[in-house]
Amino acid sequence: MILTGPQIARERENQRLVLEPFDPARVQPNSYDLALGPTLAYYTGEVLDTRQANAFAEVEIPDEGFVLEPDRIYLGSSVERLGSEHLVPIIRSRSAAARLGLFVHVTADLIDIGSIGQTTFQFHAVQPVRVHAGDCLAQVTFWRPRGRIVLYDGKYQNSRGPQPSQIHLDAVGAGR
Amino acid sequence: MILTGPQIARERENQRLVLEPFDPARVQPNSYDLALGPTLAYYTGEVLDTRQANAFAEVEIPDEGFVLEPDRIYLGSSVERLGSEHLVPIIRSRSAAARLGLFVHVTADLIDIGSIGQTTFQFHAVQPVRVHAGDCLAQVTFWRPRGRIVLYDGKYQNSRGPQPSQIHLDAVGAGR
Amino acid sequence: MILTGPQIARERENQRLVLEPFDPARVQPNSYDLALGPTLAYYTGEVLDTRQANAFAEVEIPDEGFVLEPDRIYLGSSVERLGSEHLVPIIRSRSAAARLGLFVHVTADLIDIGSIGQTTFQFHAVQPVRVHAGDCLAQVTFWRPRGRIVLYDGKYQNSRGPQPSQIHLDAVGAGR
Repeated sequence: MILTGPQIARERENQRLVLEPFDPARVQPNSYDLALGPTLAYYTGEVLDTRQANAFAEVEIPDEGFVLEPDRIYLGSSVERLGSEHLVPIIRSRSAAARLGLFVHVTADLIDIGSIGQTTFQFHAVQPVRVHAGDCLAQVTFWRPRGRIVLYDGKYQNSRGPQPSQIHLDAVGAGR
Repeated sequence: MILTGPQIARERENQRLVLEPFDPARVQPNSYDLALGPTLAYYTGEVLDTRQANAFAEVEIPDEGFVLEPDRIYLGSSVERLGSEHLVPIIRSRSAAARLGLFVHVTADLIDIGSIGQTTFQFHAVQPVRVHAGDCLAQVTFWRPRGRIVLYDGKYQNSRGPQPSQIHLDAVGAGR
Repeated sequence: MILTGPQIARERENQRLVLEPFDPARVQPNSYDLALGPTLAYYTGEVLDTRQANAFAEVEIPDEGFVLEPDRIYLGSSVERLGSEHLVPIIRSRSAAARLGLFVHVTADLIDIGSIGQTTFQFHAVQPVRVHAGDCLAQVTFWRPRGRIVLYDGKYQNSRGPQPSQIHLDAVGAGR
């Protein structure tokens, strides 16, 4: 079951989920709006590879905003620190951002239960689109799980700012 | 919990959700197929901005269909009027459309509980693809919420046809 | 409700879902990782059409990997045979793949209840990205349904390898 907005606020009060900072005006009927943090990351190479380290650079969004170009993937992060040991967060776009052709994730919308931190967005712009730090582009929903819970215990715990892919490390280990 | 197709039909009979017009042949195992309405909208500028009004134009889909180009975001709408005050609708593509490389939303798949109207699709084509009015490109699923319900009370209520983004109005108000 | 990883393993043991082959190391907090099979399919024409058959070709991924280009939609499939007559599978990307700008579906993430087979991925790369057979790019989640179940009985049952779109057959029949 998907939590209603009032239930998100209530579970937060009961410390069953983390959402900081929290502004009651951003509670929606079934979600909570997330703001864009000040830093973007992008890869400096043109061809990426699942089995190589992919070099990247970071940029601070200037006051006049930053134009996301269609031929490049950008990583950003939420201002908010969020997660839960009891509920499963799923990220989606606010419809106002999506109607400008801005993807806020690239089919990786699920946050593992127990993973707490600033969420990494995967931005893809269909047409060039200028974004500004603090824009509410995304939202988070929360879902009730069924079954025994084993908390996330991975390398992105307590992440701050955008986190590039570590997929090349998979090939070293047991296939993931 | 996600409703099964037979349960979608039943909740509609009990007036717990709106789905008009309704064709029993379009009930799927866990969803209902949606048809494409006759009008598309697109932005006339090349660079869009989250804090400016973005001018747009509308086009009627001709009898021979309309080719969606990869470098542009298009907005369309469902023929069907849909929504619910008790359940949460979530939009997705029919797999037959997705296998042609046609996105029907841009990570904004959630419809607020209480929002009733023709749904705005966000179309992005990976390769050029010709679409036709009446094509069943999308489907809607319905999900049970948990918690106190506060119904949607926003500017898109009872919308008809594709609705462009109003995100630039956020900057004026309280940050959304 | 979304199943936890341990619950996915348990429901599989109780034969309530199919996931073969199965590796306990790929169980995540709320999902199971899926590996990429050896074959990719793509359309040979430039402009696709919802009401025409769209010719396609297949390619085996060579040992050095295969570069997915941004201007083309590719279909792939999971190594795993999966599905359920009791639960609804939904596909998403592993975040490590998404952070390279690789979509694993094109808004068609839902698998009909009762549909069992190798899952067809819809790949779209924002930048060129080299993939390798056996890469864990996607994951599957399982959701509890509500209502009477009518099992999938369609043309993709028991599919093996990537399955191109059959959407042009819709126009012949009753609209789907």
